[in-house]
Amino acid sequence: MSKLVASIQEAIKQCGLQDGMTISFHHHMRNGDYVLNMVMEVIAQMGYKNLTVNASSVFDVHEPLIGHIKNGVVTNLECNYMGGKVGKAISQGLMENPVIFRSHGGRASDMEKGTSVIDIAFIAAPTADDMGNCTGKYGPSACGSIGYAFADAMNAKKVVVITDNLVAYPLVDFSIPEVYVDCVVAVEQIGNPAGIVSGTTKITRDPVGLKMADYAAKVIEASGLLKDGFSFQTGAGGATLAAAKYIKEMMVAKGIQGSFGMGGITAYMVDMLESGCFKALLDVQCFDLDAVKSIRSNPKHMEVSATQYAGVSGKSAGVDSLDVVLLGATQVDLDFNVNVHTDSNGYIMGGSGGHCDTAAGSKLAIIIAPLTRARLPLVVEHCLCVSTPGKTVDVVVTQRGIAVNTAGGKNVELKQKLKEAKLPVVEISELKKMAEEIAGVPKPVKMGEKVVAKVLYRDGTLLDTIYSVK
Amino acid sequence: MSKLVASIQEAIKQCGLQDGMTISFHHHMRNGDYVLNMVMEVIAQMGYKNLTVNASSVFDVHEPLIGHIKNGVVTNLECNYMGGKVGKAISQGLMENPVIFRSHGGRASDMEKGTSVIDIAFIAAPTADDMGNCTGKYGPSACGSIGYAFADAMNAKKVVVITDNLVAYPLVDFSIPEVYVDCVVAVEQIGNPAGIVSGTTKITRDPVGLKMADYAAKVIEASGLLKDGFSFQTGAGGATLAAAKYIKEMMVAKGIQGSFGMGGITAYMVDMLESGCFKALLDVQCFDLDAVKSIRSNPKHMEVSATQYAGVSGKSAGVDSLDVVLLGATQVDLDFNVNVHTDSNGYIMGGSGGHCDTAAGSKLAIIIAPLTRARLPLVVEHCLCVSTPGKTVDVVVTQRGIAVNTAGGKNVELKQKLKEAKLPVVEISELKKMAEEIAGVPKPVKMGEKVVAKVLYRDGTLLDTIYSVK
Repeated sequence: MSKLVASIQEAIKQCGLQDGMTISFHHHMRNGDYVLNMVMEVIAQMGYKNLTVNASSVFDVHEPLIGHIKNGVVTNLECNYMGGKVGKAISQGLMENPVIFRSHGGRASDMEKGTSVIDIAFIAAPTADDMGNCTGKYGPSACGSIGYAFADAMNAKKVVVITDNLVAYPLVDFSIPEVYVDCVVAVEQIGNPAGIVSGTTKITRDPVGLKMADYAAKVIEASGLLKDGFSFQTGAGGATLAAAKYIKEMMVAKGIQGSFGMGGITAYMVDMLESGCFKALLDVQCFDLDAVKSIRSNPKHMEVSATQYAGVSGKSAGVDSLDVVLLGATQVDLDFNVNVHTDSNGYIMGGSGGHCDTAAGSKLAIIIAPLTRARLPLVVEHCLCVSTPGKTVDVVVTQRGIAVNTAGGKNVELKQKLKEAKLPVVEISELKKMAEEIAGVPKPVKMGEKVVAKVLYRDGTLLDTIYSVK
Repeated sequence: MSKLVASIQEAIKQCGLQDGMTISFHHHMRNGDYVLNMVMEVIAQMGYKNLTVNASSVFDVHEPLIGHIKNGVVTNLECNYMGGKVGKAISQGLMENPVIFRSHGGRASDMEKGTSVIDIAFIAAPTADDMGNCTGKYGPSACGSIGYAFADAMNAKKVVVITDNLVAYPLVDFSIPEVYVDCVVAVEQIGNPAGIVSGTTKITRDPVGLKMADYAAKVIEASGLLKDGFSFQTGAGGATLAAAKYIKEMMVAKGIQGSFGMGGITAYMVDMLESGCFKALLDVQCFDLDAVKSIRSNPKHMEVSATQYAGVSGKSAGVDSLDVVLLGATQVDLDFNVNVHTDSNGYIMGGSGGHCDTAAGSKLAIIIAPLTRARLPLVVEHCLCVSTPGKTVDVVVTQRGIAVNTAGGKNVELKQKLKEAKLPVVEISELKKMAEEIAGVPKPVKMGEKVVAKVLYRDGTLLDTIYSVK
């Protein structure tokens, strides 16, 4: 008995793909992923139509999706993040049906609750055996954690593992066990690991970024949360990484023994683990090859599923124990709502990922962003898209001022602490004014009539609607 | 946020236990387990009645269950194995409702299929954090794998983790993640690790046992399966361990690199792993403290869930890749059906455990047992209980002869190979005759009228019924 089949085509046949079905992909190979395009190419050749593609993220490398949409192979698209190339086409009205955006936690939980049904999941597995035990930690295309793929594997009706490193049964140190897998396909290459490092994953040298990072670190220090047991998530943006560096320096200087770092993991978080700032990392995705190396060799660097990271369908998730998260934004509005789905012109170029999950779960959610970008203000009256509700956002840090969300009487003590720490605390409306003084009052953006995307919150409810760009 | 509650009583209240509900336990602490008795004592004191207890195994240490049954606290009992103390009482008609016996794979799969519904699962966790991440690998009561508890944790409506080693969040190297856990209770002691080593776990010195072991090893050698990639499961009985020792010697002598060892793991299987006979161990339960030490420190010694070990609800299980399993028996009949539930007098003193799972999955299922026990023949016309169907059994090895099951035309080649290897191949009826020549023809055992247990096969269907002892 072996689950090995000769080709992707064979696997698709065995799994009984039919027109109108939903197939899923995960994005741990990031902009180096070959699997989504490879599978979609075969599916298109086989003549299938009217499919729903649920991909945890769509990167620029997945631009061929545009052709599959135009040809009617793909008529529905669901994801947690969408890069600018496909995003622009979507915003221009490429698809008849709106894209469904979820968060990383929400996607996994919708699968577990049965509100998102996957017919066939395709798992890009850097190493697998012929019964389907698989992992991302080893192999020429190693990507580290494959945490987002757990929900797909556990809940899809059929599961196909695609690997470029088939090993003898049983794979040692598997992540996803054979119990979930129907077929295994060996291919030449599942991706280019160099593409895993996509987007900014280096500390900024820009003085504006360093200023924001300094403020963010000081906000955390002043909040009183930076003590033994401290837990922390940051993204891979240049300024947030700089903030992480400052926080590490504070922790080392003060001898603070933190609890855990979480999220997409970079070399900087690995460095904090190895420096004793954290006792563990909870890793749902590796953002660089240092993280891949670490998760393979350091037992304290643990792979977690998307549900365990940020879901709402489990009894708890890592985000529920999180002290502080540093997050980015393209827009923030006067109610502290945050947009990470579109740029200031309304073009889709992002998505929640774990943004709204961590904001909701953490004790202190800090948005860190420059006051203006390309001569457009960060702070606006109303975001073009609400990606993360303002009620879950605590602080907005810019290079010129820091706004604290005290709506409903919360964070009053925090605001006082920041003032006592001599940080430049201002009202959010003040930030808007400052931005407009620099960049001018922007012309109101008039969106088109067509609904091009719906944004679901982590609990599955509709959070916002994105319209086409005129 | 913390899931820590002050007491077992508090956890029971929070989980909403009601009369008539089903609660579950797992048996990794084996005869050293304190948790089942501790919880049942609290439940009895709280005045609950009419509960169903689903315990993966019931050991002699769980004798207090008899009192809870007499008092009406427990009115249904489900398990995969039952030691002689509770077994005898059941056979004497203690309970109104029949005990439900399952296999280790069947129990997990019935939970996953929803045919076995657990209201509250109690997990005996040698180490846990306050959000419920837990493991058996560490702590003063370390038991190694907690593989049988996975299905309980993943499928029960409510899950209570009971630990005597509470550590700071997040537990490093967790087995069961927090997503499944509702409450955590810290207690003084969850069990006595010395009790994990219960039953025979040492190589026999008895000449009869050694003879059988020698034959079993030679059967495996002659079968042609003992080559690179060989996989193997054996129990903890003295003769099967001796057979494992012989097999190891053959593998080392011939330089055979096996694939995996599986099942309840003993020091002997660990030794085979460390000697390079296997590249991995798949461990659903540790049978001794050497195994506990190994699973903690050797990444090749992997914990697997009961579903991954032996279930039928997953897309595959370890047993499906298994070459050879060595199993015991109290009775074998002329159709090669095997009884491991009752003794020759009909008293319950065992259960399938993984017996029928591994027999069904493996390429070669060998029963190894002495021709007579306490002057009663091993081979009988009809087993008092069919624990494992004869169609899944290939060979019966005794100290006097070896019978091959060729029903339906299978194993004809194997039989020939064993003859060529000059092994004492006889018909199963011949074994019966030989046993009767030694022990005399036993008086037919007349069972009582009352149904005291139903034996479900791994797929959930009724396999046999056990009647009371007169």
